Amino acid sequence: MDKLTVARTAKEARLRQRAVVVWFYGLSGAGKSTLALGLDERLTSAGFFTTLLDGDAMRQGLSRGLGFSDADRAENLRRAAETARLFLQNGVITLGAFISPLRVHRALVREIIGPADLIEVYVSASFATCAQRDTKGLYARAASGSVRQFTGKDSGFEVPGPEESPLAIDSERQSVAACLDQLWARVQPCITL
Amino acid sequence: MDKLTVARTAKEARLRQRAVVVWFYGLSGAGKSTLALGLDERLTSAGFFTTLLDGDAMRQGLSRGLGFSDADRAENLRRAAETARLFLQNGVITLGAFISPLRVHRALVREIIGPADLIEVYVSASFATCAQRDTKGLYARAASGSVRQFTGKDSGFEVPGPEESPLAIDSERQSVAACLDQLWARVQPCITL
Repeated sequence: MDKLTVARTAKEARLRQRAVVVWFYGLSGAGKSTLALGLDERLTSAGFFTTLLDGDAMRQGLSRGLGFSDADRAENLRRAAETARLFLQNGVITLGAFISPLRVHRALVREIIGPADLIEVYVSASFATCAQRDTKGLYARAASGSVRQFTGKDSGFEVPGPEESPLAIDSERQSVAACLDQLWARVQPCITL
Repeated sequence: MDKLTVARTAKEARLRQRAVVVWFYGLSGAGKSTLALGLDERLTSAGFFTTLLDGDAMRQGLSRGLGFSDADRAENLRRAAETARLFLQNGVITLGAFISPLRVHRALVREIIGPADLIEVYVSASFATCAQRDTKGLYARAASGSVRQFTGKDSGFEVPGPEESPLAIDSERQSVAACLDQLWARVQPCITL
Protein backbone atom coordinates (compact mmCIF):
# COMPACT_ATOMS: atom_id res chain seq x y z
CA MET A 1 0.00 0.00 0.00
CA ASP A 2 1.61 3.24 -1.08
CA LYS A 3 1.64 6.54 0.78
CA LEU A 4 -1.24 7.94 -1.24
CA THR A 5 -3.46 4.98 -0.37
CA VAL A 6 -2.77 5.33 3.33
CA ALA A 7 -3.60 9.02 3.15
CA ARG A 8 -6.87 8.27 1.35
CA THR A 9 -7.93 5.64 3.87
CA ALA A 10 -7.17 7.98 6.75
CA LYS A 11 -9.17 10.75 5.12
CA GLU A 12 -12.08 8.45 4.41
CA ALA A 13 -12.07 7.43 8.07
CA ARG A 14 -12.04 11.09 9.13
CA LEU A 15 -15.01 11.78 6.83
CA ARG A 16 -16.71 8.50 7.79
CA GLN A 17 -17.27 7.46 4.19
CA ARG A 18 -15.76 5.60 1.27
CA ALA A 19 -15.01 7.89 -1.67
CA VAL A 20 -16.20 7.25 -5.22
CA VAL A 21 -16.56 9.29 -8.39
CA VAL A 22 -20.06 9.42 -9.89
CA TRP A 23 -19.80 10.51 -13.53
CA PHE A 24 -23.03 11.69 -15.19
CA TYR A 25 -23.02 11.82 -18.97
CA GLY A 26 -25.56 12.41 -21.71
CA LEU A 27 -26.92 15.11 -24.01
CA SER A 28 -27.19 18.75 -22.96
CA GLY A 29 -30.59 19.06 -21.31
CA ALA A 30 -30.82 15.36 -20.42
CA GLY A 31 -30.75 16.27 -16.74
CA LYS A 32 -27.14 15.57 -15.72
CA SER A 33 -26.66 18.71 -13.62
CA THR A 34 -30.15 18.51 -12.12
CA LEU A 35 -29.54 14.94 -10.98
CA ALA A 36 -25.97 15.65 -9.83
CA LEU A 37 -27.20 18.60 -7.77
CA GLY A 38 -30.09 16.57 -6.37
CA LEU A 39 -27.81 13.69 -5.42
CA ASP A 40 -25.34 16.16 -3.94
CA GLU A 41 -28.07 17.58 -1.70
CA ARG A 42 -29.24 14.13 -0.58
CA LEU A 43 -25.68 13.05 0.19
CA THR A 44 -24.90 16.23 2.09
CA SER A 45 -28.12 15.95 4.11
CA ALA A 46 -27.14 12.40 5.02
CA GLY A 47 -23.79 13.65 6.33
CA PHE A 48 -21.56 12.69 3.43
CA PHE A 49 -18.81 15.03 2.22
CA THR A 50 -18.99 15.73 -1.51
CA THR A 51 -17.88 17.95 -4.33
CA LEU A 52 -19.53 18.67 -7.64
CA LEU A 53 -17.61 19.36 -10.83
CA ASP A 54 -19.33 20.57 -13.94
CA GLY A 55 -18.48 21.86 -17.36
CA ASP A 56 -19.09 25.52 -16.56
CA ALA A 57 -16.83 25.47 -13.49
CA MET A 58 -14.08 23.69 -15.45
CA ARG A 59 -14.34 26.09 -18.39
CA GLN A 60 -14.02 29.10 -16.06
CA GLY A 61 -11.03 27.67 -14.22
CA LEU A 62 -8.81 24.71 -15.05
CA SER A 63 -9.91 24.54 -18.69
CA ARG A 64 -9.83 28.26 -19.42
CA GLY A 65 -8.47 28.78 -22.90
CA LEU A 66 -9.77 25.48 -24.28
CA GLY A 67 -12.32 25.59 -27.09
CA PHE A 68 -14.81 23.07 -28.42
CA SER A 69 -12.78 21.19 -31.03
CA ASP A 70 -12.59 17.42 -30.57
CA ALA A 71 -9.07 17.74 -29.13
CA ASP A 72 -10.04 20.54 -26.74
CA ARG A 73 -13.16 18.69 -25.56
CA ALA A 74 -11.08 15.60 -24.84
CA GLU A 75 -8.52 17.71 -22.96
CA ASN A 76 -11.31 19.37 -20.95
CA LEU A 77 -12.60 15.94 -19.96
CA ARG A 78 -9.11 14.69 -19.15
CA ARG A 79 -8.59 17.61 -16.77
CA ALA A 80 -12.02 17.11 -15.23
CA ALA A 81 -11.23 13.43 -14.62
CA GLU A 82 -7.80 14.26 -13.17
CA THR A 83 -9.46 16.78 -10.85
CA ALA A 84 -12.04 14.19 -9.80
CA ARG A 85 -9.19 11.78 -9.11
CA LEU A 86 -7.51 14.30 -6.79
CA PHE A 87 -10.70 14.72 -4.77
CA LEU A 88 -11.16 10.93 -4.72
CA GLN A 89 -7.65 10.48 -3.37
CA ASN A 90 -8.59 12.91 -0.63
CA GLY A 91 -11.58 10.83 0.39
CA VAL A 92 -14.19 13.16 -1.10
CA ILE A 93 -17.25 11.76 -2.92
CA THR A 94 -17.05 13.47 -6.29
CA LEU A 95 -19.89 14.08 -8.73
CA GLY A 96 -19.04 15.06 -12.30
CA ALA A 97 -21.58 16.19 -14.91
CA PHE A 98 -20.14 16.30 -18.42
CA ILE A 99 -21.68 15.45 -21.79
CA SER A 100 -18.73 13.07 -22.49
CA PRO A 101 -20.19 12.37 -25.93
CA LEU A 102 -17.82 9.71 -27.24
CA ARG A 103 -16.98 6.21 -26.05
CA VAL A 104 -13.31 7.18 -26.07
CA HIS A 105 -14.15 10.02 -23.70
CA ARG A 106 -15.74 7.64 -21.21
CA ALA A 107 -12.82 5.22 -21.66
CA LEU A 108 -10.41 8.04 -20.79
CA VAL A 109 -12.36 8.91 -17.65
CA ARG A 110 -12.42 5.21 -16.68
CA GLU A 111 -8.67 4.95 -17.21
CA ILE A 112 -7.90 8.01 -15.08
CA ILE A 113 -10.30 7.29 -12.21
CA GLY A 114 -10.01 3.51 -12.25
CA PRO A 115 -13.10 1.32 -12.64
CA ALA A 116 -13.21 0.27 -8.97
CA ASP A 117 -13.80 3.87 -7.86
CA LEU A 118 -16.10 4.98 -10.66
CA ILE A 119 -19.88 4.85 -11.02
CA GLU A 120 -20.88 5.80 -14.55
CA VAL A 121 -24.38 7.19 -14.99
CA TYR A 122 -25.90 7.58 -18.43
CA VAL A 123 -28.72 10.12 -18.24
CA SER A 124 -30.94 9.72 -21.27
CA ALA A 125 -33.72 11.70 -22.87
CA SER A 126 -34.48 12.00 -26.57
CA PHE A 127 -32.91 14.79 -28.59
CA ALA A 128 -36.40 16.24 -29.12
CA THR A 129 -37.06 16.36 -25.38
CA CYS A 130 -33.67 17.90 -24.61
CA ALA A 131 -34.25 20.49 -27.34
CA GLN A 132 -37.67 21.26 -25.89
CA ARG A 133 -36.30 21.66 -22.34
CA ASP A 134 -33.29 23.66 -23.68
CA THR A 135 -32.10 24.45 -20.16
CA LYS A 136 -29.27 26.69 -21.30
CA GLY A 137 -30.80 28.04 -24.51
CA LEU A 138 -28.16 26.14 -26.45
CA TYR A 139 -30.54 24.26 -28.74
CA ALA A 140 -32.10 27.50 -29.90
CA ARG A 141 -28.67 28.98 -30.55
CA ALA A 142 -27.55 25.79 -32.33
CA ALA A 143 -30.64 25.94 -34.55
CA SER A 144 -29.77 29.52 -35.48
CA GLY A 145 -26.17 28.50 -36.16
CA SER A 146 -24.56 30.63 -33.44
CA VAL A 147 -23.27 27.64 -31.46
CA ARG A 148 -20.95 25.43 -33.45
CA GLN A 149 -20.00 21.81 -32.84
CA PHE A 150 -23.02 21.34 -30.62
CA THR A 151 -23.43 17.74 -29.47
CA GLY A 152 -26.34 16.08 -31.20
CA LYS A 153 -26.30 18.50 -34.11
CA ASP A 154 -22.85 19.01 -35.65
CA SER A 155 -21.02 16.51 -33.50
CA GLY A 156 -22.29 13.11 -32.52
CA PHE A 157 -23.24 11.57 -29.23
CA GLU A 158 -22.46 7.88 -28.94
CA VAL A 159 -24.87 5.95 -26.74
CA PRO A 160 -23.14 3.52 -24.36
CA GLY A 161 -21.61 0.58 -26.22
CA PRO A 162 -21.71 -3.10 -25.22
CA GLU A 163 -18.37 -2.72 -23.41
CA GLU A 164 -19.86 -0.04 -21.19
CA SER A 165 -22.28 -0.78 -18.40
CA PRO A 166 -23.43 2.48 -16.90
CA LEU A 167 -26.34 2.92 -14.58
CA ALA A 168 -28.90 4.05 -17.18
CA ILE A 169 -31.35 6.68 -16.00
CA ASP A 170 -34.27 7.62 -18.19
CA SER A 171 -35.09 11.20 -17.28
CA GLU A 172 -37.80 11.39 -19.91
CA ARG A 173 -40.13 8.73 -18.50
CA GLN A 174 -39.26 9.17 -14.80
CA SER A 175 -39.68 12.04 -12.38
CA VAL A 176 -36.57 13.65 -10.91
CA ALA A 177 -37.45 12.12 -7.53
CA ALA A 178 -37.64 8.63 -9.07
CA CYS A 179 -34.30 9.18 -10.83
CA LEU A 180 -32.76 10.24 -7.52
CA ASP A 181 -34.13 7.13 -5.78
CA GLN A 182 -32.54 5.00 -8.50
CA LEU A 183 -29.23 6.82 -8.03
CA TRP A 184 -29.34 6.59 -4.25
CA ALA A 185 -29.91 2.84 -4.38
CA ARG A 186 -26.80 2.45 -6.54
CA VAL A 187 -24.49 4.92 -4.79
CA GLN A 188 -25.33 4.62 -1.10
CA PRO A 189 -24.02 1.04 -0.58
CA CYS A 190 -20.69 2.01 -2.22
CA ILE A 191 -19.92 4.93 0.07
CA THR A 192 -20.87 3.52 3.46
CA LEU A 193 -17.87 2.47 5.54
CA MET B 1 -23.45 35.76 -0.68
CA ASP B 2 -23.52 33.51 -3.72
CA LYS B 3 -24.29 29.81 -3.87
CA LEU B 4 -20.64 28.85 -3.85
CA THR B 5 -19.98 30.82 -0.67
CA VAL B 6 -22.84 29.16 1.13
CA ALA B 7 -21.56 25.75 0.09
CA ARG B 8 -18.07 26.61 1.32
CA THR B 9 -19.31 27.84 4.68
CA ALA B 10 -21.40 24.70 5.15
CA LYS B 11 -18.43 22.51 4.28
CA GLU B 12 -16.14 24.42 6.63
CA ALA B 13 -18.69 23.89 9.40
CA ARG B 14 -18.84 20.16 8.63
CA LEU B 15 -15.03 20.00 8.79
CA ARG B 16 -14.87 22.33 11.81
CA GLN B 17 -12.28 24.60 10.24
CA ARG B 18 -11.79 27.67 8.09
CA ALA B 19 -10.09 26.86 4.79
CA VAL B 20 -7.01 28.65 3.51
CA VAL B 21 -4.36 27.99 0.89
CA VAL B 22 -0.76 27.92 2.13
CA TRP B 23 1.58 28.41 -0.83
CA PHE B 24 5.24 27.48 -0.28
CA TYR B 25 7.72 28.87 -2.79
CA GLY B 26 11.48 29.01 -3.17
CA LEU B 27 14.41 27.26 -4.83
CA SER B 28 14.48 23.52 -5.41
CA GLY B 29 16.00 22.05 -2.26
CA ALA B 30 15.00 25.01 -0.06
CA GLY B 31 12.70 22.74 1.91
CA LYS B 32 9.24 23.55 0.51
CA SER B 33 8.01 19.94 0.33
CA THR B 34 9.61 19.00 3.65
CA LEU B 35 7.85 21.87 5.40
CA ALA B 36 4.56 21.33 3.55
CA LEU B 37 4.59 17.65 4.53
CA GLY B 38 5.53 18.49 8.10
CA LEU B 39 2.76 21.09 8.38
CA ASP B 40 0.33 18.64 6.77
CA GLU B 41 1.14 16.06 9.44
CA ARG B 42 0.74 18.55 12.29
CA LEU B 43 -2.57 19.81 10.90
CA THR B 44 -3.89 16.29 10.38
CA SER B 45 -2.85 15.24 13.90
CA ALA B 46 -4.72 18.26 15.25
CA GLY B 47 -7.89 17.12 13.42
CA PHE B 48 -7.79 19.49 10.46
CA PHE B 49 -8.69 18.27 6.97
CA THR B 50 -6.03 19.08 4.39
CA THR B 51 -4.68 18.34 0.97
CA LEU B 52 -1.19 18.74 -0.39
CA LEU B 53 -0.44 19.66 -3.99
CA ASP B 54 3.05 19.53 -5.38
CA GLY B 55 4.84 19.86 -8.66
CA ASP B 56 5.35 16.14 -9.19
CA ALA B 57 1.66 15.32 -8.65
CA MET B 58 0.60 18.11 -11.01
CA ARG B 59 3.07 17.07 -13.69
CA GLN B 60 1.79 13.49 -13.58
CA GLY B 61 -1.85 14.50 -13.76
CA LEU B 62 -3.42 17.86 -14.57
CA SER B 63 -0.27 19.28 -16.15
CA ARG B 64 0.71 16.21 -18.13
CA GLY B 65 2.05 17.32 -21.49
CA LEU B 66 3.40 20.64 -20.26
CA GLY B 67 7.14 21.27 -20.46
CA PHE B 68 9.46 23.69 -18.71
CA SER B 69 9.37 26.72 -20.98
CA ASP B 70 8.34 30.00 -19.34
CA ALA B 71 4.84 29.69 -20.80
CA ASP B 72 4.44 26.06 -19.72
CA ARG B 73 5.70 26.78 -16.21
CA ALA B 74 3.23 29.62 -15.86
CA GLU B 75 0.43 27.38 -17.14
CA ASN B 76 1.44 24.64 -14.69
CA LEU B 77 1.24 27.15 -11.84
CA ARG B 78 -2.08 28.50 -13.09
CA ARG B 79 -3.56 25.00 -13.03
CA ALA B 80 -2.10 24.31 -9.60
CA ALA B 81 -3.64 27.53 -8.27
CA GLU B 82 -7.02 26.74 -9.88
CA THR B 83 -6.90 23.29 -8.29
CA ALA B 84 -6.05 24.81 -4.91
CA ARG B 85 -9.00 27.17 -5.36
CA LEU B 86 -11.36 24.24 -5.94
CA PHE B 87 -10.24 22.56 -2.72
CA LEU B 88 -10.50 25.91 -0.89
CA GLN B 89 -14.08 26.33 -2.13
CA ASN B 90 -14.79 22.90 -0.69
CA GLY B 91 -13.54 23.92 2.75
CA VAL B 92 -10.27 21.99 2.55
CA ILE B 93 -7.03 23.50 3.92
CA THR B 94 -4.71 23.30 0.92
CA LEU B 95 -0.91 23.27 0.94
CA GLY B 96 0.92 23.92 -2.31
CA ALA B 97 4.67 23.53 -2.81
CA PHE B 98 5.90 25.03 -6.07
CA ILE B 99 9.10 26.89 -6.93
CA SER B 100 6.99 29.78 -8.36
CA PRO B 101 10.21 31.54 -9.38
CA LEU B 102 8.88 34.85 -10.71
CA ARG B 103 6.94 37.67 -9.13
CA VAL B 104 4.38 37.38 -11.90
CA HIS B 105 3.91 33.73 -10.92
CA ARG B 106 3.09 34.67 -7.34
CA ALA B 107 0.85 37.49 -8.57
CA LEU B 108 -1.07 34.96 -10.68
CA VAL B 109 -1.52 32.63 -7.72
CA ARG B 110 -2.69 35.59 -5.60
CA GLU B 111 -5.17 36.63 -8.27
CA ILE B 112 -6.66 33.13 -8.60
CA ILE B 113 -6.85 32.28 -4.88
CA GLY B 114 -7.61 35.77 -3.61
CA PRO B 115 -5.39 37.43 -0.99
CA ALA B 116 -7.88 36.90 1.88
CA ASP B 117 -7.60 33.12 1.57
CA LEU B 118 -3.89 32.87 0.80
CA ILE B 119 -0.86 32.54 3.08
CA GLU B 120 2.32 32.90 1.07
CA VAL B 121 5.43 31.27 2.50
CA TYR B 122 8.86 32.03 1.09
CA VAL B 123 11.23 29.23 2.05
CA SER B 124 14.78 30.42 1.67
CA ALA B 125 18.18 28.84 1.66
CA SER B 126 21.20 29.89 -0.36
CA PHE B 127 21.79 28.42 -3.81
CA ALA B 128 24.95 26.79 -2.43
CA THR B 129 23.04 25.09 0.37
CA CYS B 130 20.25 23.92 -1.95
CA ALA B 131 22.87 22.57 -4.36
CA GLN B 132 24.60 20.76 -1.51
CA ARG B 133 21.33 19.21 -0.26
CA ASP B 134 20.27 18.42 -3.85
CA THR B 135 17.22 16.49 -2.65
CA LYS B 136 16.20 15.37 -6.14
CA GLY B 137 19.64 15.17 -7.76
CA LEU B 138 18.63 18.08 -9.98
CA TYR B 139 21.60 20.32 -9.17
CA ALA B 140 24.03 17.59 -10.19
CA ARG B 141 22.13 17.05 -13.42
CA ALA B 142 21.95 20.81 -14.04
CA ALA B 143 25.71 21.09 -13.53
CA SER B 144 26.24 18.36 -16.12
CA GLY B 145 23.85 20.13 -18.51
CA SER B 146 21.22 17.36 -18.62
CA VAL B 147 18.49 19.47 -16.99
CA ARG B 148 17.70 22.62 -18.90
CA GLN B 149 16.06 25.81 -17.68
CA PHE B 150 16.79 24.87 -14.10
CA THR B 151 15.76 27.60 -11.68
CA GLY B 152 18.79 29.36 -10.25
CA LYS B 153 21.01 28.32 -13.11
CA ASP B 154 19.53 28.99 -16.57
CA SER B 155 16.37 30.69 -15.37
CA GLY B 156 16.17 33.19 -12.58
CA PHE B 157 14.49 33.10 -9.22
CA GLU B 158 13.15 36.46 -8.10
CA VAL B 159 13.23 36.94 -4.33
CA PRO B 160 10.02 38.47 -2.95
CA GLY B 161 9.64 42.09 -4.00
CA PRO B 162 8.51 45.03 -1.85
CA GLU B 163 4.90 44.50 -2.99
CA GLU B 164 4.98 40.96 -1.62
CA SER B 165 4.86 40.16 2.07
CA PRO B 166 5.23 36.43 2.50
CA LEU B 167 5.96 34.67 5.72
CA ALA B 168 9.73 34.26 5.25
CA ILE B 169 11.19 31.05 6.56
CA ASP B 170 14.94 30.60 6.66
CA SER B 171 15.48 26.86 6.37
CA GLU B 172 19.25 27.30 6.35
CA ARG B 173 19.66 28.79 9.82
CA GLN B 174 16.69 27.08 11.49
CA SER B 175 15.87 23.46 12.21
CA VAL B 176 12.84 21.89 10.52
CA ALA B 177 11.08 21.83 13.89
CA ALA B 178 11.69 25.56 14.39
CA CYS B 179 10.41 26.29 10.85
CA LEU B 180 7.28 24.27 11.59
CA ASP B 181 6.71 26.18 14.83
CA GLN B 182 6.95 29.43 12.88
CA LEU B 183 4.46 28.11 10.31
CA TRP B 184 2.06 26.82 12.91
CA ALA B 185 1.98 30.19 14.69
CA ARG B 186 1.01 31.88 11.41
CA VAL B 187 -1.47 29.31 10.09
CA GLN B 188 -3.28 28.00 13.14
CA PRO B 189 -5.13 31.24 14.04
CA CYS B 190 -6.42 31.52 10.44
CA ILE B 191 -8.02 28.09 10.28
CA THR B 192 -9.72 27.90 13.65
CA LEU B 193 -13.46 28.51 13.49
